[in-house]
Amino acid sequence: MSDSRPEPYDAVDVIRTKRDGGRLDDGQVDWVVDAYTRGVVADEQMSALAMAILLNGMDRREIARWTDAMIRSGERMDFSGLSRPTADKHSTGGVGDKITLPLAPLVAACGVAVPQLSGRGLGHTGGTLDKLESIPGWRASLSREEMIAQLEDVGAVVCAAGSELAPADKKLYALRDVTGTVQAIPLIASSIMSKKIAEGTGSLVLDVKVGTGAFMKDLDQARELASTMVGLGSDAGVRTVALLTDMSTPLGLTAGNALEVRESVEVLAGGGPADVVELTLALAGEMLAGAGCTDVDPASVLASGAAMDTWRAMIAAQGGDPSAELPTARETHVVTAPATGVLTRLDAMAVGLAAWRLGAGRARQDDTVQAGAGVEWHARPGDSVSQGEPLLTLHTDEPDRFERALASLEGGYDVAPDGTSYEPTPLVLDRLS
Amino acid sequence: MSDSRPEPYDAVDVIRTKRDGGRLDDGQVDWVVDAYTRGVVADEQMSALAMAILLNGMDRREIARWTDAMIRSGERMDFSGLSRPTADKHSTGGVGDKITLPLAPLVAACGVAVPQLSGRGLGHTGGTLDKLESIPGWRASLSREEMIAQLEDVGAVVCAAGSELAPADKKLYALRDVTGTVQAIPLIASSIMSKKIAEGTGSLVLDVKVGTGAFMKDLDQARELASTMVGLGSDAGVRTVALLTDMSTPLGLTAGNALEVRESVEVLAGGGPADVVELTLALAGEMLAGAGCTDVDPASVLASGAAMDTWRAMIAAQGGDPSAELPTARETHVVTAPATGVLTRLDAMAVGLAAWRLGAGRARQDDTVQAGAGVEWHARPGDSVSQGEPLLTLHTDEPDRFERALASLEGGYDVAPDGTSYEPTPLVLDRLS
Repeated sequence: MSDSRPEPYDAVDVIRTKRDGGRLDDGQVDWVVDAYTRGVVADEQMSALAMAILLNGMDRREIARWTDAMIRSGERMDFSGLSRPTADKHSTGGVGDKITLPLAPLVAACGVAVPQLSGRGLGHTGGTLDKLESIPGWRASLSREEMIAQLEDVGAVVCAAGSELAPADKKLYALRDVTGTVQAIPLIASSIMSKKIAEGTGSLVLDVKVGTGAFMKDLDQARELASTMVGLGSDAGVRTVALLTDMSTPLGLTAGNALEVRESVEVLAGGGPADVVELTLALAGEMLAGAGCTDVDPASVLASGAAMDTWRAMIAAQGGDPSAELPTARETHVVTAPATGVLTRLDAMAVGLAAWRLGAGRARQDDTVQAGAGVEWHARPGDSVSQGEPLLTLHTDEPDRFERALASLEGGYDVAPDGTSYEPTPLVLDRLS
Repeated sequence: MSDSRPEPYDAVDVIRTKRDGGRLDDGQVDWVVDAYTRGVVADEQMSALAMAILLNGMDRREIARWTDAMIRSGERMDFSGLSRPTADKHSTGGVGDKITLPLAPLVAACGVAVPQLSGRGLGHTGGTLDKLESIPGWRASLSREEMIAQLEDVGAVVCAAGSELAPADKKLYALRDVTGTVQAIPLIASSIMSKKIAEGTGSLVLDVKVGTGAFMKDLDQARELASTMVGLGSDAGVRTVALLTDMSTPLGLTAGNALEVRESVEVLAGGGPADVVELTLALAGEMLAGAGCTDVDPASVLASGAAMDTWRAMIAAQGGDPSAELPTARETHVVTAPATGVLTRLDAMAVGLAAWRLGAGRARQDDTVQAGAGVEWHARPGDSVSQGEPLLTLHTDEPDRFERALASLEGGYDVAPDGTSYEPTPLVLDRLS
């Protein structure tokens, strides 16, 4: 658009409309997203609008239009030329959530292509790319041609989203992060779905986390977010299903980069923690159903070793050595059980913060992460523990980090006397389609 | 404060507190106003906070602290060394509101010093400085010493506020203007009162306008704003009274810069429109009472010509020639009455927009204004009009402005058949102290 052409809308009018509880029409939404991307709507104007959206909401049509405008701010990918159907998964982020690592090769081994564009971690939740980058040689950046070739040959690719996908979202996300406007459900939903729709997947499974370690602390909020995203996906022609899953307890037995890769490889080898296996199979089943492959049993494919073969091929295709030894942290510190009895609670947020403070995560976008840092826990809620035996092992390259990590674990777990009844929370809390 | 000293608060935490409906504590308010002035809190963060304040409000203590923090962002003036008491007036802005021009010299002629720091107009309401600058030679900028000397010698000064008074307010006002956050009552009240309290007046009368041509369209909103400001003034030791006055009809018979100066001089000469005289005397009475001068009758002082003498001295002290001919616009356009009957409505906003579009006002802070441009109306609601006789005269130097000015007057007045009963709105609607 030429600079000499007058703008058809005024930013202050658009802000006022939402401030006063009105709905933005299609023209206003299209313009404000486009003009923000072009720099005509200033950051301070968009942040005021984001706050008004957070407090006054958006209806389904506004959210759909907003999502579409963000998609149109960049390019779309197209996998329709592939010889097999495509399915993707998105998690809203949790502690110890390494599910993508066993899931992508498992689904690919079942015959469905998985084009997963992932992000890096920020704050207490880890990022899939950070985890895979702990594998010597592995690289996150692929050209579009490399990505399509790998999808055809190997069936699964996990790589960084290029800047050409939904650039409006990239700009808006950075703004929301510093202006207290991350929590707006319309903006969360449109941010996630604009990238997933632009990515061009045929079907999508959303893993919406609920609990202390998740973005959404309660089930109602999580259900609203899930149902908004399922609606957006369906409206855009992407078969979309959401599972609401527990994130009050961290997943598996590790949180950290190399630590989680190691655990994922155990799952691919037929072992690993029961909850990681359960969620991997549940999500695989949904992805296969979404892609129309209902005649394959992911549990058998996992047991057959075919998923492990695909994993090794997927890592190798991106320069990684699947046989290489994974990095370990230079220092460890063991936390012992304070009493003998039953572990009744291990708080996901406490563990996530500890892993972050040990160096596994980043506080700012341009921080680096430690490959070996993180937390291992040796018991899960419901398990018996003995006073003085190891309960948690903290890993870091920098021992001065232990103190703050230990502080974040304070009050983060409960041990009750033997015989106390323990009622486990189901892992999958609800399903929306 | 040194850059190496860590900030005691985090902008996102402050924003979240207000976003989630909480109250900001004194430390948060002090910090966010100071850090915004220093540039540590970014524009996009302050605009998100301003929107949260607009939608979630602030309690009396928060507003008082916010006002105080804005005062402490700059210097305070001190008139306690003057030989007479001080009183000031602030209007929230209306169309044809030239009251400061006759009022300041009148109150000074009654023995009370009037230190009025004024602003320039923006949008459809005019600015007192713009009006006075239509007088050849008159200058708005005075040093503090010049201001104090003039207050002692003449008794009244109307000049531009220096940048040393409440710089936080100046920065925040410019931001609110472009982010749709002007309308927040806590921010309006603290913006006005921080400047008036920093200015150091002993007593203050607020003219809070209500109606189509005012910032506050309804009486309840205006009353809330007025009562908030009266509370802030009283808490800061400034005797403060508010009059709520009608602004559905423009004041007097003119809107424009030189046009309003001419009308003000008529009032000082003992003539002028009845509503301008009525409001001038009402506000003068309040200012005198606030300053403890209850034994002077402003109507007699006005009739005596003493106020006119003070006006001439006040203009001359700032370089103006009170006898000089005032500028007139190069072009005029007459709008005639569409029918014979009674003028039952003349809309303040329609007239204000027309005057603005004729060149009397500005759209941006750095626009210039035409001294001669504006609107004259030849009848006020309740007056009889005859079809084809002049109803309004439009003035501008640039005849291509007539078309848009006429468009804004469309639907802006009603003429009803002769004999239609007309119930005038009282000029002073309420009083709060």
